[in-house]
Amino acid sequence: MIVIGERINGQFPQVSKAIDARDSKYIQSLAVEQTNAGAHVLDVNTGPGREDGPAAMEWLVKTIQDIVHVRLSIDSPGLKVQQAGLSSCQLEPIINSTTAEQKRMEKFFPLAKEFNAEIICLTIDEKGIPNSAEARAEIAMVLMANAMEHGVNPEKLYLDPVVLPISAAQDQCPILCDAITALRALNTPPPKTAVGLSNISSGSEERSLLNRTYLAMLLGRGLDAAIVDPNDIELMKVVKASEVLLNQRLYAHSFLKV
Amino acid sequence: MIVIGERINGQFPQVSKAIDARDSKYIQSLAVEQTNAGAHVLDVNTGPGREDGPAAMEWLVKTIQDIVHVRLSIDSPGLKVQQAGLSSCQLEPIINSTTAEQKRMEKFFPLAKEFNAEIICLTIDEKGIPNSAEARAEIAMVLMANAMEHGVNPEKLYLDPVVLPISAAQDQCPILCDAITALRALNTPPPKTAVGLSNISSGSEERSLLNRTYLAMLLGRGLDAAIVDPNDIELMKVVKASEVLLNQRLYAHSFLKV
Repeated sequence: MIVIGERINGQFPQVSKAIDARDSKYIQSLAVEQTNAGAHVLDVNTGPGREDGPAAMEWLVKTIQDIVHVRLSIDSPGLKVQQAGLSSCQLEPIINSTTAEQKRMEKFFPLAKEFNAEIICLTIDEKGIPNSAEARAEIAMVLMANAMEHGVNPEKLYLDPVVLPISAAQDQCPILCDAITALRALNTPPPKTAVGLSNISSGSEERSLLNRTYLAMLLGRGLDAAIVDPNDIELMKVVKASEVLLNQRLYAHSFLKV
Repeated sequence: MIVIGERINGQFPQVSKAIDARDSKYIQSLAVEQTNAGAHVLDVNTGPGREDGPAAMEWLVKTIQDIVHVRLSIDSPGLKVQQAGLSSCQLEPIINSTTAEQKRMEKFFPLAKEFNAEIICLTIDEKGIPNSAEARAEIAMVLMANAMEHGVNPEKLYLDPVVLPISAAQDQCPILCDAITALRALNTPPPKTAVGLSNISSGSEERSLLNRTYLAMLLGRGLDAAIVDPNDIELMKVVKASEVLLNQRLYAHSFLKV
């Protein structure tokens, strides 16, 4: 599984303050901590309502790259912030994210093409997030077709069926499992899938238990990537156990230590 | 999920000794402990190579029923041991188990009919345990057809695709996930499925981690029942988390305490 670390996000007050103060040590400590914990990619989000968005993103990307050699996921709905982030990335970046809304696809697929980036594609259109697995798959078809029209290779896409909080939309939780299966059935080889995992437990107690149990279920359906907290040790154990159980990594008694 | 407690099994040396000594207190402590931990059914196995099999099974069943009001799973390949157990059960029993071998089906399906029992049906035939999910589903068809011929309602069956140890057959682990999906596709409503979970980690370190991660994956595929160690607190948390994530039990922040 591709582990995308979620901790460098301006929605966390401490991160927001560090961005304001251009406190590179704090940002770099988050980068080192997550990569040491097993993150393959770091998500980078400047946070909402920031006037210096592009400059902040550029600073974040450079600050992280000064300390770790790791792929980055540029997490912003703003075109200028995306451009600032993508043009600073040394390794293949991920755009997080587009939806199937026309005005978004028109902006973000050309960007994916220009920067040879992977791109997370949320199964959301002008009408919102659909209720069923099948309707999510239909929106995914629109995303895949539109990406192709813009010259973006299907292998560059991560289809994301949009995890919703169990506290708000419990009926959607099993549907998401079916959605992973439905998205993977859209093509051969199966399209790649990703989720923002922690959303499942937003507002819940027992966040880690819900996160890691749900992650095992989704990995058992074939999920390829997830945005998670790699500092959650129990969660990362489930990632490793899942990889050996799914025969993606050679089993050894010491698999946790590898 | 139907939690079938695995602890009363003569393969555990202490249980074997307790059966030899007819130590009802020890057996009853295992029964109380497992039901308090959340087991809905207790598996009862006298252990291998016991000359007093039928008498031992009858004693076990009566001893357990003297202390807890709980369904029992009579776990023996021996016809006389099964008869001794089933005829002593006060609540609807489970026969654990038949295979699709003719000589077994001819013995055990009539027994299921006679005692109005549920029955675990392993997808094993004269040629052994097949490698693929599809071949397991084919054997399940034989089991379902043979059960019907003997007047056993399909709702009485738990189809069991046979979990193998990751240390011996890693490639079979993901296939088992697909097998649950394939078995459930055989009928509408889907046939019930069950597994002996702990086998996945036989001979492994990190047994609980492997057991509970695999259980979440299988429950995410629709598994109905599993023979497990209900005294594994972390495993039982995963059972509860899975039930709320699969919308089978109403979510509340306090779901672990219910």
